[in-house]
Amino acid sequence: MEEVKLKELFSDLTLEEKIGQLVQLSGEFFQSKDISYGPQHKLGISSRTTELVGSILNVTGAKETQKLQNQQMKLQPHHIPVLFMSDIIYGYKTIFPIPLGMGSTWNPDLVKKAFSVAAEEAAVSGNHVAFAPMVDVVRDARWGRVLESPGEDTYLNSQLAQAMVYGLQNNLSNKKGQISCVKHYAAYGAVESGKEYNAVDMSLSKLFQNYLPPYKAAIDAGCKMVMTSLSTFNGIPVTADKWLLQDILRKQWKFSGVIISDYSSVYELIKHGFAQDQKDAAKKAINAGIDIDMKSPIYANELQGLVTNGTLDIKKINDACWRVLKMKNYLGLFENPYFGSKANDEKQILLTSEKRALSRQVAEEAIVLLKNKNNLLPLSTTKKVALIGPYADEKSLIGMWAVHGDVNDCISIKEGLKKYFGNNLTSEKGTDIIRDRDELLGLGFINENNISNYISPVSIEKENHKKAVMAAKNADIIIMALGEHTLESGEAGAKQFLSLPDNQLKLLDDLTQLKKPIIVINISGRPLELRQVVDKVDAVIQAWFPGTEGGNAIANIIVGNVNPSGRLSITFPYSVGQEPIYYSHLKTGRSLDNSQHEGRFVSRYIDGYNTPLFPFGYGLSYGKVKYHDLVIDNDTISKDDSIHASVIITNESSWSQKETVQVYFHDDTASIVQPVKRLVAFKKISLNAYQSRKITFNINSQKFSFFNNYGEQKLESGKFHLYVGPDSENVKEAKFTIV
Amino acid sequence: MEEVKLKELFSDLTLEEKIGQLVQLSGEFFQSKDISYGPQHKLGISSRTTELVGSILNVTGAKETQKLQNQQMKLQPHHIPVLFMSDIIYGYKTIFPIPLGMGSTWNPDLVKKAFSVAAEEAAVSGNHVAFAPMVDVVRDARWGRVLESPGEDTYLNSQLAQAMVYGLQNNLSNKKGQISCVKHYAAYGAVESGKEYNAVDMSLSKLFQNYLPPYKAAIDAGCKMVMTSLSTFNGIPVTADKWLLQDILRKQWKFSGVIISDYSSVYELIKHGFAQDQKDAAKKAINAGIDIDMKSPIYANELQGLVTNGTLDIKKINDACWRVLKMKNYLGLFENPYFGSKANDEKQILLTSEKRALSRQVAEEAIVLLKNKNNLLPLSTTKKVALIGPYADEKSLIGMWAVHGDVNDCISIKEGLKKYFGNNLTSEKGTDIIRDRDELLGLGFINENNISNYISPVSIEKENHKKAVMAAKNADIIIMALGEHTLESGEAGAKQFLSLPDNQLKLLDDLTQLKKPIIVINISGRPLELRQVVDKVDAVIQAWFPGTEGGNAIANIIVGNVNPSGRLSITFPYSVGQEPIYYSHLKTGRSLDNSQHEGRFVSRYIDGYNTPLFPFGYGLSYGKVKYHDLVIDNDTISKDDSIHASVIITNESSWSQKETVQVYFHDDTASIVQPVKRLVAFKKISLNAYQSRKITFNINSQKFSFFNNYGEQKLESGKFHLYVGPDSENVKEAKFTIV
Repeated sequence: MEEVKLKELFSDLTLEEKIGQLVQLSGEFFQSKDISYGPQHKLGISSRTTELVGSILNVTGAKETQKLQNQQMKLQPHHIPVLFMSDIIYGYKTIFPIPLGMGSTWNPDLVKKAFSVAAEEAAVSGNHVAFAPMVDVVRDARWGRVLESPGEDTYLNSQLAQAMVYGLQNNLSNKKGQISCVKHYAAYGAVESGKEYNAVDMSLSKLFQNYLPPYKAAIDAGCKMVMTSLSTFNGIPVTADKWLLQDILRKQWKFSGVIISDYSSVYELIKHGFAQDQKDAAKKAINAGIDIDMKSPIYANELQGLVTNGTLDIKKINDACWRVLKMKNYLGLFENPYFGSKANDEKQILLTSEKRALSRQVAEEAIVLLKNKNNLLPLSTTKKVALIGPYADEKSLIGMWAVHGDVNDCISIKEGLKKYFGNNLTSEKGTDIIRDRDELLGLGFINENNISNYISPVSIEKENHKKAVMAAKNADIIIMALGEHTLESGEAGAKQFLSLPDNQLKLLDDLTQLKKPIIVINISGRPLELRQVVDKVDAVIQAWFPGTEGGNAIANIIVGNVNPSGRLSITFPYSVGQEPIYYSHLKTGRSLDNSQHEGRFVSRYIDGYNTPLFPFGYGLSYGKVKYHDLVIDNDTISKDDSIHASVIITNESSWSQKETVQVYFHDDTASIVQPVKRLVAFKKISLNAYQSRKITFNINSQKFSFFNNYGEQKLESGKFHLYVGPDSENVKEAKFTIV
Repeated sequence: MEEVKLKELFSDLTLEEKIGQLVQLSGEFFQSKDISYGPQHKLGISSRTTELVGSILNVTGAKETQKLQNQQMKLQPHHIPVLFMSDIIYGYKTIFPIPLGMGSTWNPDLVKKAFSVAAEEAAVSGNHVAFAPMVDVVRDARWGRVLESPGEDTYLNSQLAQAMVYGLQNNLSNKKGQISCVKHYAAYGAVESGKEYNAVDMSLSKLFQNYLPPYKAAIDAGCKMVMTSLSTFNGIPVTADKWLLQDILRKQWKFSGVIISDYSSVYELIKHGFAQDQKDAAKKAINAGIDIDMKSPIYANELQGLVTNGTLDIKKINDACWRVLKMKNYLGLFENPYFGSKANDEKQILLTSEKRALSRQVAEEAIVLLKNKNNLLPLSTTKKVALIGPYADEKSLIGMWAVHGDVNDCISIKEGLKKYFGNNLTSEKGTDIIRDRDELLGLGFINENNISNYISPVSIEKENHKKAVMAAKNADIIIMALGEHTLESGEAGAKQFLSLPDNQLKLLDDLTQLKKPIIVINISGRPLELRQVVDKVDAVIQAWFPGTEGGNAIANIIVGNVNPSGRLSITFPYSVGQEPIYYSHLKTGRSLDNSQHEGRFVSRYIDGYNTPLFPFGYGLSYGKVKYHDLVIDNDTISKDDSIHASVIITNESSWSQKETVQVYFHDDTASIVQPVKRLVAFKKISLNAYQSRKITFNINSQKFSFFNNYGEQKLESGKFHLYVGPDSENVKEAKFTIV
């Protein structure tokens, strides 16, 4: 409707109605009218609140949302439609690889397409707002939510943040898009010790330099909503941090959209010991700038009283409510409260073969080949192959947070390989994913009643093991499909051990006795400690949770229909004792390779590798590519100029190949000590067999600036190093000067 | 001399001489006049610099220092004596337990005595300044220098900092003391990932609340010197951090003593990428406030030029030089340049039986009994005991940084036990400390030429193992003396794995097969991952590196001559994957024991214990003590009042016992989220057999204040919890209110 009309509507609303617009509840609240038990009782909210609620969480499906929309519009005195919001992080029905896998594609255009597809599917199913992208920079593999993040790098995450927002929102006008809600502002990925919901604490330089840019990139791309983190930042819960929400987000970044809390984080201000009681929590959250209170009783029960007793300026509520109404109007909900939802269209739109093909393509670019001794891969389909392991014929390939996806839609690895190898393929489970009862019970959702679904009786386990060894004996080549349980990563999936379960490692050890070539496919939501695995086998494929088409994508790579091109967007540690570990660490005074101190007194661990197992940016392809002739045309530039660098990339193989050319830099001297390397540009290019290409980069000086501890962006003149290569370690170097 | 005379001398000095006073070189520089090779050549400094040098590092011994003092005074145009400074962290010749062990005594009076002894020994040996105390708060067991620190707690470290400074400086007037140099300002203990020399980064609230108070306590106790950290703080090398050195240390804390860099840290400003070249490094360090440049060519070679060309205000040099001269004058060096050094007295003063007795007593209070199943300990000396392990008869019990101590002065565990058990004791090495070649070569100081001193030939190792098993078979009880190699902790001894070496664990496993009672003595410079050990054996004694009298102290505890009273001053992790882990972590919104979310969505790791193996403050004694009747007399106090709390401690055993009564608190609601618990007071008391004592604490409200992110100390009215108990987990609780 026209804004003037919206204003009329707004001015007609009671305070209670306005507050209702700021409350978000989940679907279960609308299933029963009896509030003497169930979620309403537990949360302590009234039926009136459910009637006036402004938005609803995690209800999808065209039919379901339309029905609920009708119901709610009748109850709301002004018939204001509700917003449906949901966790759609990496697909709705067509599930793509987990975002950490999408990070490994280094392909923003492709990722944008994936998010367009997710948005189209969600829209037809009645959803309006996708709680995505999640672009927290994560530098500790212990944290479970690393699954949801594109990775450890600020620049790569920013590029992908932008692509994800474009993908979600581009088709809003024809009702095939989603409002994008970037999360989790701010720096949630830096929880101490990688432990879920733990404190985040850092200098402002580190915050501005490394953690804020991806959120900013999302907002600059037009993202209309921001979700706060569940953690504290420097001792203050972000959900009540005026400085982060007002000074940075609203004033500095000019963000005018809606700010929503994370699940119950307004209520948790009390748990944190930051608010004394529910009244105090309400006051602190709304004054800090939280527009919508997700799944907590605080706004619903306390805001009105605070206004009535004069503690809270009603303007805060008016402003927040107006932002929510504007979002509804932007979607056209007042004219068409069903938005893009069409029950009849769902079948034609959800999980189509085109969408599956795109998911497969993303997976093919997300999968990272970590080792390929003597070019064991790709395999000829004439080989006899034994596919062994708990993930051999497992359809659970979508990971922890594809909440609307269905594992039954997935292609298992066996199904993927079968198409190529036919009768040359035998497949055996060999062992369960996890056999340790305590471990399984610790994952949540698994309890004494259902644990037998996860853990086979000893006799069956023995039989599985025997059959696996037999199959392996009869094969030329062993492919092992190992990995983490779905519940081992994702939210609240923090781990202090990063190796594969003992039973899987035991199976691997037993099969290595056969002295046959072994390829390991690792399914995981995070970097694992793979050193023992890597040492023992010939090839390793990091497949993440690859999504609906995972089995086909893996098969295409194994047989060489696809030349792998994934490059790690996160460091794989040598051991968990190195965490947090990341390529872009600050320069020390006694670096391992450049210290005047010999022997002991250098920056390192004395008991193991000081480099990670696999560095950021790393990944193999089947071809062989050489980087040479790195040249900077103008090696002295001013602060408003750009450097022009070029490098020749030569394909020395008969494979056509996608190559991610990565550009890093180091500011030699600065008033804040700088990282040893920082990614500043990249291009994913195609090379035909034996083709040589000159790749050029024009990089504006401003990209070489940094943030100080006052949050000021500084570009200091001086000498710089530029590094170009296929990963963050293996680089050519050139120098330039900014004057 | 009188200050007016000192001023005359000062005004007579050339700029070159003044700069000389700001240079510190190590002893090796004064051994040869040929500078075409050796340290002078390597560092690039002139003979003139060695002549004018103001202080000398790590030369001790009355004779040696007197000779060198004579030589230098002749060379210095005004015959200004040099200052001798040295690393005396936990003893000079009489070596005490490592500071992490001294932390476990919770006994500031005793620690003060230990430092008095160290100071007396160092003074008679010609030293003037002890680079101690090291009071960095350390919350990550991976860092090797945790050995040098009293532990993880701000309050305990502060109490011990004070005791250490008093101990060192109290007898300065009769020339039996040492100038104390607190280190490493600031927050060096928080290096990222526990990796040596790595970056330190944190909020100002965390800095002021947790990391600064121990340095401040040392300065408030009269400490006359401060050493800077080798690391960066929030991106700025501390050695060039004006804010830390001027705004906080000089202005806020009114520190008027000497500030010295750490070893070559002025030079390393270049390596950090913070200074462009040596000139820039000199300018940045002196302008930030570094008075003395330790072991680097920067001040010697650059300061004069900077003054000459007008880049540097000569006042900076004058002020620094004046502070150094004042320190020399304070010690009376202009009258007696030998200070307390007396070659004839050394024998009567060093390592006397009284000093040994004190070292033994400190060790007895430092050793922590971690497990004692069925009261296996203490042992009757009529039992047949097999003492087995690489530390069974090993004299290396003084740890990495007792640089002036001699392992030959140490009492081994075998020597200690032999006195009690006589022929009932057999002892076997069983295995080397470490048998992995790469591991040994990684420690530094061990190379291909000397590795055979550390690793036995396979045949000998086999023989050792066999003899150990045989000895164990013939015994009633097995005592295993296991532990870290001396070189595995201390500076540059960071580790990513925290378990005992495989060969030691293998030996333990083999001996558990005998099904005899096993006691493990663990020698280590840090908390190790002991979960496998603890589960398999009956008793565990954490003995640290216990010092010169280690074997006697351990024996006294094993036979029950001493009732163990040590309490951990640092958390022992369940696994390295929990690091950093500490008791005083900030409250989360979803704590394990207090969240509205059931099952999965709480702050934890899903794959293991979320508590440490042993918490801060933990330790067993032979007796049994009960805490009861915790009462706060005045549970509502004003901001300038004190609370009066009392608790009854009842000894329910026939043992007389030392008990450390620990008082923690929690500020229920604050404008900065507060730790779940914070130590605020403790008393180490004595209890006779079956004695009951009422212990009272008067705690001023100001102790319940905290620091915000502006470095402001705040005491906010509201509700608080007080916890009293024998460790940080096992506590009684009471409530109070500050109005």
